[in-house]
Amino acid sequence: MIPALKDVQAAVKRIAPHVHNTPVLTSSTIDRMLKATVYFKCENFQRGGSFKIRGSVNAILQLSEDERARGVITHSSGNFAAALALAATALDTKAYIVMPTNAPSVKRDAVVGYGAQIIDCEPTLKSRESTMLAQQKKRGATFIHPSNDMNVILGNATAAMELAKKTEQLDVVIAPVGGGGLLAGTAMAVNHLHYYIETIGAEPFGADDAYLSLKTGKIQPSINPKTIADGLKTQLGDQNFPIIRKLVSKIIRVEESEIIEAMKFIWERMKIVIEPSSAVAVAAMFRNSIEFKNRKVGVILSGGNVDVSNLPF
Amino acid sequence: MIPALKDVQAAVKRIAPHVHNTPVLTSSTIDRMLKATVYFKCENFQRGGSFKIRGSVNAILQLSEDERARGVITHSSGNFAAALALAATALDTKAYIVMPTNAPSVKRDAVVGYGAQIIDCEPTLKSRESTMLAQQKKRGATFIHPSNDMNVILGNATAAMELAKKTEQLDVVIAPVGGGGLLAGTAMAVNHLHYYIETIGAEPFGADDAYLSLKTGKIQPSINPKTIADGLKTQLGDQNFPIIRKLVSKIIRVEESEIIEAMKFIWERMKIVIEPSSAVAVAAMFRNSIEFKNRKVGVILSGGNVDVSNLPF
Repeated sequence: MIPALKDVQAAVKRIAPHVHNTPVLTSSTIDRMLKATVYFKCENFQRGGSFKIRGSVNAILQLSEDERARGVITHSSGNFAAALALAATALDTKAYIVMPTNAPSVKRDAVVGYGAQIIDCEPTLKSRESTMLAQQKKRGATFIHPSNDMNVILGNATAAMELAKKTEQLDVVIAPVGGGGLLAGTAMAVNHLHYYIETIGAEPFGADDAYLSLKTGKIQPSINPKTIADGLKTQLGDQNFPIIRKLVSKIIRVEESEIIEAMKFIWERMKIVIEPSSAVAVAAMFRNSIEFKNRKVGVILSGGNVDVSNLPF
Repeated sequence: MIPALKDVQAAVKRIAPHVHNTPVLTSSTIDRMLKATVYFKCENFQRGGSFKIRGSVNAILQLSEDERARGVITHSSGNFAAALALAATALDTKAYIVMPTNAPSVKRDAVVGYGAQIIDCEPTLKSRESTMLAQQKKRGATFIHPSNDMNVILGNATAAMELAKKTEQLDVVIAPVGGGGLLAGTAMAVNHLHYYIETIGAEPFGADDAYLSLKTGKIQPSINPKTIADGLKTQLGDQNFPIIRKLVSKIIRVEESEIIEAMKFIWERMKIVIEPSSAVAVAAMFRNSIEFKNRKVGVILSGGNVDVSNLPF
């Protein structure tokens, strides 16, 4: 069952003291190019550098006092690991992050810097899952899935709620899709705001499992995904897929060159740093520009965590 | 004579319909590092990508109808050329930009794209000045100096006025200094707001003519300046130097490595694109961090025009 509007509103209120109500930016250049009105929800300015803190905070705040005392655990080497670490520390909870031993040291450092404890596993799915289970049992920590958890999805939904509050009545909102938590949350919020507003997902051709899942009507695995948008390599889950299937009108796929071009364009023209996953949503808008003409378009810029010494352009 | 507060306020009102009231951003990371409260005035988000549109618009709007019909002319290959072009087009005035034939094509394209006419000169000071004079005479256009023009300085002052309106009572404002137009405008605004607020200039060691000018009490030429902050290579003028001398408490000089490090830090942590000239102000704050402890600091991020395919890190 899809949570009600009041559940989303409760999440907005619940997490507000712990997250930034990020700015909504516009660009007259882009509006002129597309003959549209585009609102960018800047989650790259969010605490921890991505929207992931929203779901993390919301999930932790839904735990009992006893559960919070035992801590939370997840597996991730990306933005969710950092966000859960940051959220847990802010909320005086212990976070355990299961990470493969070959994860980049910069990501490990971020997690430790935010106050979480890293638990090493081998870089295989099997090791990750067995390590998770063993640690969860040993420590009594609550597992929080990065994208397939209804409290995480509800937390993610708050970004679109804030966006809509700062804009005119939108016609369509575009969000990138990886594990599906952001897209499901966005669609949920958008649909509650007005049944008339469309939600569109954006995905790399090199990791188009969500596109195929919508097409076939069942969750497709993400097999050997290849994309610069490393946040979008994961697959949908049983919590978010039904929401996406019901409320997302379609998924636009984009080429790697389009992602890189969109990223460079936003950096140079809007003077903001966005990561490749965010650029996927922008690239989708550029690719299908005709369908956005004369419409009011919201774009969720999901994050801005990039190693600026190692750029694709 | 230094313009009065009412003159600055009139400039704020005059240019408001034509420029962005740019956001003021903060960073809890930086505040923690410095044990200070720092407000960044984001002129990198300004129209044309820098604060220069402020002075351009203000200067054009002070012309008579007859003068506006004949157009404006300047020499610049940087942000001011683009800004004057943009301002002139927006205000239905013709702009002529004298530019050396060896200026980067990306800069020439920007000026033409904004609707101005480029007038070629040889890449020497002599050719630039003679071309300027000949064209000014021929077309009857009004010369607007990029930094040494009181209407330009008054226009620049509006950035600090907007900054102060969005913050708590500041203790100090830091701005980069090249030709001196931004620093003089900032000091003028800040001094009118409260005599107690300090204005500090920031300058590369490799182009420290303003530092030397303040030290010796007369304008020093900028001889063979060497810095990545290409907007700061010019020298002070007789309009802005008296203001700087009277109202600026000091100039902090920074190394090239500090500029690059500060630029990278702001990109990665604040997720915004700033150009090296802006990073000079940030670097000055980091270099002298002890003196900013427990103070409320305003920093003018002057612009964000960078070729992101060609970065120093």
